[in-house]
Amino acid sequence: MKNIKLLISYDGTRYYGWQRQKEKPTIQGVIEEKLKVLTGEDVKLIGSGRTDAGVHALGQVANFRTNCELEPERLRRALNSLLPDDIYIKKAEYVPLDFHARYSAKSKTYEYRILNREEPDIFKRRYLWHVIPPLDREKMQEALSLIVGTHDFSSFRSSGSSSVNPVRTVFRAELISDSDGLLRIVMEANGFLRHMVRNIVGTVVQVGYGKISLERFKEIFEAKDRRLAGKKAPAQGLFLVEVKY
Amino acid sequence: MKNIKLLISYDGTRYYGWQRQKEKPTIQGVIEEKLKVLTGEDVKLIGSGRTDAGVHALGQVANFRTNCELEPERLRRALNSLLPDDIYIKKAEYVPLDFHARYSAKSKTYEYRILNREEPDIFKRRYLWHVIPPLDREKMQEALSLIVGTHDFSSFRSSGSSSVNPVRTVFRAELISDSDGLLRIVMEANGFLRHMVRNIVGTVVQVGYGKISLERFKEIFEAKDRRLAGKKAPAQGLFLVEVKY
Repeated sequence: MKNIKLLISYDGTRYYGWQRQKEKPTIQGVIEEKLKVLTGEDVKLIGSGRTDAGVHALGQVANFRTNCELEPERLRRALNSLLPDDIYIKKAEYVPLDFHARYSAKSKTYEYRILNREEPDIFKRRYLWHVIPPLDREKMQEALSLIVGTHDFSSFRSSGSSSVNPVRTVFRAELISDSDGLLRIVMEANGFLRHMVRNIVGTVVQVGYGKISLERFKEIFEAKDRRLAGKKAPAQGLFLVEVKY
Repeated sequence: MKNIKLLISYDGTRYYGWQRQKEKPTIQGVIEEKLKVLTGEDVKLIGSGRTDAGVHALGQVANFRTNCELEPERLRRALNSLLPDDIYIKKAEYVPLDFHARYSAKSKTYEYRILNREEPDIFKRRYLWHVIPPLDREKMQEALSLIVGTHDFSSFRSSGSSSVNPVRTVFRAELISDSDGLLRIVMEANGFLRHMVRNIVGTVVQVGYGKISLERFKEIFEAKDRRLAGKKAPAQGLFLVEVKY
C-alpha cells in the first residue's frame, strides 16, 4: 500500500466544486475517474478541503492510498494526459501512510482577486470580481487587520457549514494592489468556515465603498451573527493558493 | 451624418471571426446588432480588417456612419451594457467623414503568444499556444529579423487571401520573452496577408525546434511558394494589438 500526495491546479468555472456529486462534474469526481483508469482501483481521493462551485485552485492538495506500483512522476504524466485542460496535476509524490490531506493540514492560503477600475479585463473575466466604484484600499486593509488572530468567525460563516467550532486563527489578511487596478486579498488561516473568505471579502468591499464604516465592520464581526455581514463575493474571484503541512 | 470610430477588444474564442456571417456569431455581427438597437439604423461597421475565428483583439478599430445624435461616450457606455462580456468598446469618438478604418490604416500590430515550458497555464489556455520542447529564442529572433522590410510574402499567405499583391512592408518583428516561459512575437506591418502571422509563427517555431535551419527558413521565404512553410500556428495565441492611422 502506498500513499500518494497530489498538488493540483484547476479552473473551477465549469465544475460544481471539489466534492464528488452524482451526475454533476466535480474536480474530485473527474480525478477519481481518471485514477480508476490508471490504477484499476476505486480510488478515494482525500482533498485538503472542499472548494465551492466556480472557485479555482493554484495549489489544492489531495492524497490517495493505492496498491498500484506506478511511480508518482509517471502517474502524474499519465493522469495529466487523461485530464481535461482545466485541471492540471503539478506534482505527485509518495508520502507516509498516515499523511491525510485534510487532517494533516497546518494552514491554508486563499487569494481573492478584484479588478477595481472602470474597464473590465475581458480575458480574465472568469478569474476576478469586477468592481467599478473606487475602493478605499487603506480602509479595506484596516478591516482585514481586525480579523487577524484567533476569533469566533460566526459572523462570516454561511449556513451549512459542517464545522461545529466557529473559532479559527487567521495568520495573515492582506490587501495587495497593483497599478492596473487589481486588488488581491490574501488570507492564511489554520482553517476556514464555509464561505468565510467570500463573506469577509464581500463585507470588506462594502467598507471600501464607504457603505460600512470600520466601526460597523467591527460590530458585525463581534456580533457573531451571520445575518449582519455583507453579501458574499462571487465565487469566480477566489483561488485556493496553498496548503501547508 | 456623423462618422464614429470605435476601439474594440474581444475574446475571439466563441466567435467565427470578425466578419459578419449568416447564422454564425461574429464580432462584427454582434456589434452591428447592438448598434441597430441603439441607433435604429442598419449600421455598417467597417473594421480595420478581418480577424479569423478564435483570434483575439486588444485594439481592433472600426468605424460607422450614422445619423444618430447620441454622443460617442454615451453610445460607448450603452453599447457596452448591451454587448456580451467577451466584447468591450474601449473608446468611441467622432472622426472626419472620410475616415475609413480599413483604407486609412497606416500599420497594424499583431502579437502571438507562446508558452514554452512543460507546465501549462490552465487559466490562459485560451490565449496562448502551449509548446513544450525548449525553443531556441535567438534562432527564432534571427528568422524574424529576415522578414523585416519590404518583401513578397507569398510563402506565408494562405489560399483564399483576398489581396492580389503579396508584397508587404514589415516594420518590426520581435521576440520578447519573460522568465515564466512566455514568448511574445510582435509584428508590425503596413498590412498582412491571410494567415500571414500564423504561418510565419508556425515556421519560426520550427526554426526554434531546430527542425528547420535558418538557411532553410530563408529558402522557404524566398521561394514565394506557400506549400513549403510550416503548419500555421493555432488561432488562440493571436492578438490584434493596435492599428495606427
